[in-house]
Amino acid sequence: MESEDDFKEFIINGDKKFVPHLSIDCVIFGFHNNLLKVLLLKWGKIDGWSLPGGHVLRGENVEDSAYRILKERTGLTEIYLQQFKTFGKPKRTGNALELLFKSSGVNTNIKSWLLDRFISIGYYALVDFSKVMPTADWLSEKCAWHDINKIPPMLFDHNEIVEEALKSLKFAIYHQPLGYNLLPERFTLPQLQKMYETILNKKLDRRNFQKKILSLGILNRLEERMKIGPHRSPFVYSYNKEKYEAALKEGISFSF
Amino acid sequence: MESEDDFKEFIINGDKKFVPHLSIDCVIFGFHNNLLKVLLLKWGKIDGWSLPGGHVLRGENVEDSAYRILKERTGLTEIYLQQFKTFGKPKRTGNALELLFKSSGVNTNIKSWLLDRFISIGYYALVDFSKVMPTADWLSEKCAWHDINKIPPMLFDHNEIVEEALKSLKFAIYHQPLGYNLLPERFTLPQLQKMYETILNKKLDRRNFQKKILSLGILNRLEERMKIGPHRSPFVYSYNKEKYEAALKEGISFSF
Repeated sequence: MESEDDFKEFIINGDKKFVPHLSIDCVIFGFHNNLLKVLLLKWGKIDGWSLPGGHVLRGENVEDSAYRILKERTGLTEIYLQQFKTFGKPKRTGNALELLFKSSGVNTNIKSWLLDRFISIGYYALVDFSKVMPTADWLSEKCAWHDINKIPPMLFDHNEIVEEALKSLKFAIYHQPLGYNLLPERFTLPQLQKMYETILNKKLDRRNFQKKILSLGILNRLEERMKIGPHRSPFVYSYNKEKYEAALKEGISFSF
Repeated sequence: MESEDDFKEFIINGDKKFVPHLSIDCVIFGFHNNLLKVLLLKWGKIDGWSLPGGHVLRGENVEDSAYRILKERTGLTEIYLQQFKTFGKPKRTGNALELLFKSSGVNTNIKSWLLDRFISIGYYALVDFSKVMPTADWLSEKCAWHDINKIPPMLFDHNEIVEEALKSLKFAIYHQPLGYNLLPERFTLPQLQKMYETILNKKLDRRNFQKKILSLGILNRLEERMKIGPHRSPFVYSYNKEKYEAALKEGISFSF
């Protein structure tokens, strides 16, 4: 959406282009400075934060819609995407859209498909923080990363959606190697452990963690070390893409 | 649906009552004679099987819709229900509904909300096989259990939905104790092991399985044995409801 005219056309005729009653919300996770982050939008016309989201084109596969929306917000095309839950409480969107209409000078008596009930399909994405270009639009004042522990109160039921996404990510990490999408290409085992600890929200034993993660056989140790403290220069690792893909497909069973 | 009149009213005016473009499909799992079963409907008017499903009332919570649909088919009110995936390919329903209209004597040029695109929310349910009363209706000729390994080719994308439900169930069993809903009230450890083996589709070591399952502390050993072979009379167990509920809430970490 790039202008007020775009917005008014969308309010009145959007349902000719998009499937009514259905939306998509994306929880975009990134990992930076040992912290798990989520990408949020600050609305310009009304005061509030929300998840980036959008709608499904009439002939479009729902999964393709999610990729399209993510590309608009992050600039990335190859990202790890996972549908995790659909949200369908009757009044989940509250009155935020009426407020938006009012503050945008749109007559609130207008019959708009946007004021109907919406059921939203939640996807989470794992992205390499350093490669993302957070992108706002006409409706949003800014698009910014937030620490998972400092998510502001959001519009609609979006706080609940973030919580559920995190819960799904916690389950997933027991069965899938997820670091390839969240970490930079080269990383150390302490960094990888920190990623696991952040997602699981608990401390892990260093020796036990390293033994388990190496036994998966999906990491390559490179011939270099990274200086991370006065007496700490751990080896640098990268993922073996082929073995990583196989583990992702077959699933692993990890317990900590 | 109880008559042809009900059906015609539903075709023409159903979208006044139900949210358009959105359906619910239920994969109802039961466990009987050491086999995992799924409850399917045989359509009367056209030749084909499908999952039991339905629509969301305009003011209804989506989860409540799933419970309502399940109650209609099984007679049960207290069942374990889990949303697992939403299915949104553009042509996922094929032309089965046009065929149904034709064979029911409905004019196929009629404008019906049912011929629009539908996105379907998948739920799986775990039920006690012995307590279910499979219930057909005017549209369905019968409602019957099928072995998970002998699912017939189904209408729409319902074979894919069953596969995805089974995949989710496999993941869930590593984190949740699921036997309470699938087994009768009193059971033996060999029965419980068979349930795990059937869902995971692999043999488990008896001694290792028993050690792990007992260490969860959610089973009560009763003062009786069940004769299951000439020289085999294992103890009978039941779940400790309170500890089971706690494990379900907090999650467990199981690996086989």
